[in-house]
Amino acid sequence: MTDETAPKTEDFRPEARAPRGFADKRARDLRAEKSILEAVSAVYERYGFEALDTGAFEYADALGKFLPDSDRPNEGVFALQDDDDQWMALRYDLTAPLARFAAQNWETLPKPFRRYAFGPVWRNEKPGPGRFRQFIQCDADTVGSARPEADAEIIAMAVEGLEAAGLPRGAAVLKINNRKLLNGLLTQAGATSEGQKLAVLRAVDKLDRLGVDGVRLLLGEGRLDDSGDFTKGAGLAGKAIDSVLDFVQAGVGGRSATLNNIAKVVAGSAEGDEGLEELAKIDAALTSLGVADDQAIIDPSIVRGLEYYTGAVFEAELLLSTTDEKGNKVTFGSIGGGGRYDDLVARFTGQPVPATGFSFGVSRLAAALRAAGREPASAARGPVVIINFDQAHMGEYFAVAGQLRAAGIPAEVYLGTSGMRPQMKYADRRLSPAAIMLGGDEIAAGTVTIKDLDLGRELASGVADNAAWKAERPGQQTIPRGDLIAAVRKIIGG
Amino acid sequence: MTDETAPKTEDFRPEARAPRGFADKRARDLRAEKSILEAVSAVYERYGFEALDTGAFEYADALGKFLPDSDRPNEGVFALQDDDDQWMALRYDLTAPLARFAAQNWETLPKPFRRYAFGPVWRNEKPGPGRFRQFIQCDADTVGSARPEADAEIIAMAVEGLEAAGLPRGAAVLKINNRKLLNGLLTQAGATSEGQKLAVLRAVDKLDRLGVDGVRLLLGEGRLDDSGDFTKGAGLAGKAIDSVLDFVQAGVGGRSATLNNIAKVVAGSAEGDEGLEELAKIDAALTSLGVADDQAIIDPSIVRGLEYYTGAVFEAELLLSTTDEKGNKVTFGSIGGGGRYDDLVARFTGQPVPATGFSFGVSRLAAALRAAGREPASAARGPVVIINFDQAHMGEYFAVAGQLRAAGIPAEVYLGTSGMRPQMKYADRRLSPAAIMLGGDEIAAGTVTIKDLDLGRELASGVADNAAWKAERPGQQTIPRGDLIAAVRKIIGG
Repeated sequence: MTDETAPKTEDFRPEARAPRGFADKRARDLRAEKSILEAVSAVYERYGFEALDTGAFEYADALGKFLPDSDRPNEGVFALQDDDDQWMALRYDLTAPLARFAAQNWETLPKPFRRYAFGPVWRNEKPGPGRFRQFIQCDADTVGSARPEADAEIIAMAVEGLEAAGLPRGAAVLKINNRKLLNGLLTQAGATSEGQKLAVLRAVDKLDRLGVDGVRLLLGEGRLDDSGDFTKGAGLAGKAIDSVLDFVQAGVGGRSATLNNIAKVVAGSAEGDEGLEELAKIDAALTSLGVADDQAIIDPSIVRGLEYYTGAVFEAELLLSTTDEKGNKVTFGSIGGGGRYDDLVARFTGQPVPATGFSFGVSRLAAALRAAGREPASAARGPVVIINFDQAHMGEYFAVAGQLRAAGIPAEVYLGTSGMRPQMKYADRRLSPAAIMLGGDEIAAGTVTIKDLDLGRELASGVADNAAWKAERPGQQTIPRGDLIAAVRKIIGG
Repeated sequence: MTDETAPKTEDFRPEARAPRGFADKRARDLRAEKSILEAVSAVYERYGFEALDTGAFEYADALGKFLPDSDRPNEGVFALQDDDDQWMALRYDLTAPLARFAAQNWETLPKPFRRYAFGPVWRNEKPGPGRFRQFIQCDADTVGSARPEADAEIIAMAVEGLEAAGLPRGAAVLKINNRKLLNGLLTQAGATSEGQKLAVLRAVDKLDRLGVDGVRLLLGEGRLDDSGDFTKGAGLAGKAIDSVLDFVQAGVGGRSATLNNIAKVVAGSAEGDEGLEELAKIDAALTSLGVADDQAIIDPSIVRGLEYYTGAVFEAELLLSTTDEKGNKVTFGSIGGGGRYDDLVARFTGQPVPATGFSFGVSRLAAALRAAGREPASAARGPVVIINFDQAHMGEYFAVAGQLRAAGIPAEVYLGTSGMRPQMKYADRRLSPAAIMLGGDEIAAGTVTIKDLDLGRELASGVADNAAWKAERPGQQTIPRGDLIAAVRKIIGG
């Protein structure tokens, strides 16, 4: 009797497929991501941030939301039980591991502790097109400084990092807000319950989508949408609604002008004044650091991480746009963000430690750069291929390969099935810039034949007469062996 | 009633600790590993190998040994069940994901497919000192070429990669063998059962530890060790034992000499001749590629991956040595290895595809380089710290930080608790090369005071008179602001 649902015979052949939501990355993607990470790391290190990498797993209790209290606490994370029965989960961001690390090593760390980190994070969510269950994040945080200047450095570094990664100036903007401003304004207006505050934040967060009139309804009694669904509002009174709407629209002009606009709306409440003073210090430090008004703005409509941030919040918005397959304009929107948070380390130690940070998605930035035609040059270039005609000449082929490599030029001898056609197909699939031919004649004469494959492909598309094409051998030249490196460099450079 | 074993109150504070067997890596470790990976990647790309990265998970059935047939197939791997009930496991090496990827994409891949990969792999094993459950591997493989020259390229690349990573010539050697030689020899001697062949391989593998006499016993009837335990031998006859011992000791002289020695022992059997011809082609290609006899040798005593490899096998051995805390000499031994394998892709497709590759442990190589005093320079250098005296001068501090960063010098304004002592302690913990002081006097005079912290530390250790020390302020200089960059460069460079 055989069990058809679980074939276990020796002939069982598993299907070769990657798990759902996990992508295989080829050279082009990897080079683009590497280029971003190298550029950003260099900036972060110049700002004095040190690298840190923690393991893929954290204990589930250390991850915060997931206490080891149920049969299998794997909502949203990939969790498993270790052989000592403790639940572990793959990290779903880089902040929770930082909090655990900082709490664990607080006594011996330099304080403030400034670290950057990048690497995969895992989310156990339903995968979909463009939605992966593993992706690369890059974070920088300062733990142990309450100074607004620490926020300013994070912002300045994010601006410089994104530009270094390939976003030209003007292609992204950092938007800054402070949670205390709206809090102060609401306290002044008598809206003090946490529920009401959250409802206001949720309403403000819809400004882009619903416009001022829609948000006005959500701040008041509520809003009936086109489908007939009613969303209950925050229940603010008319004057408070006006204040909130004035506030979220105060982001006009440069940072100084915006600060003046905000002051008119929120000044007078203790918490609002505190938020205003923090923003003024951030502005001053940004100016000292050379961050201009077009690189970082104050935008009171920014809402991030509703229940997470406690002071300044930042969002990096891409202003690049591209067109999709249907010709529609696509804007990329937010590429990252961050802000001030105080309770992550306190979860372990009981002692609140002020922290601030910025995080962005590396794969997402790479995709945006590519879509906007700003992929790093030569991201997909293959090696020069030395055509393999004859086993007897293998030594010559390898000598030429070694010569090219010593000059820093990627090169390889074709080592697959013999025959000209598969070799050219190989060079084509690798996007090789050139093929090198060393027949018996060339070896005897001390020459080498180089075929410019890009030129060949380009010319081929415009040639009608196949016989003339073959006779002319466009993009092909036979030169002395000593001129090889220079000739290949000319092809690659051109 | 409260459950004391699972505190779930709001006051519950998890202990901040990394999961067992997972290490947090600080800047020094990360720089060392990055330096290795950058150097090796550059070499591998020059050889025409393209980068590939697969996700952390594979389906358990694709990993080979682990079919989803038991309640929880997590022997040796970290496995969990996806929400569609399929078992997934974190990759335990980079070969299994390559096999799955190659099988999945075979039609469209350039053939042969030459890829390198690096990244974490996970082993669900008992952790211990120096034994981690996550570590970084770096692999290069050629899939789809049966040519011995493909092995030679892998070997040459390993030699060049390890040297580029920081191992000076002579600090490592690649040892090459071919599984077919011993197989041929045993077939000729009438030892044809797989069990007997494995017993011979296991005996040969103990040559280093037991010497020729011990191995002779294990090849014959068996061996009684010092503790009184008897190990049953392979049961070879006297003449066959002599042949095997002659064979494993044939690695004398350069590659050509060794090939001649081997020929005398194994020539005559079809499989032995095949192995010999393959080694001869590997030797010829290595010579064409400029790999000398001290960089790669043929060593018939090398046994690797008993049931895994089908032809050539390689092992990279470190010849570096160091001393441990007790002053004993420590040799590092094997740092990596590889060889030819044919059945990984066949598991999926039924079609055998020849493949060959080399893998090494990145963290292990970094540890060896450090122990041998060959860590990359400045691996632990911190930023220049600008001392924070007065909030009113923050703008000046940031301007100086910006000036240093623009010159490529890591720098930061101290943003923690005020007071001189914590600031100097901070600079010390960061291993900062210099501290910069900008008091009111300096700002008024357009000067800046630089303290050479390395020099300070050095001088401090030799100074007895504290008063004289304070008066002289060694390593401290006040200079015009315009000379700042040059002065800091001098300190960092010196």
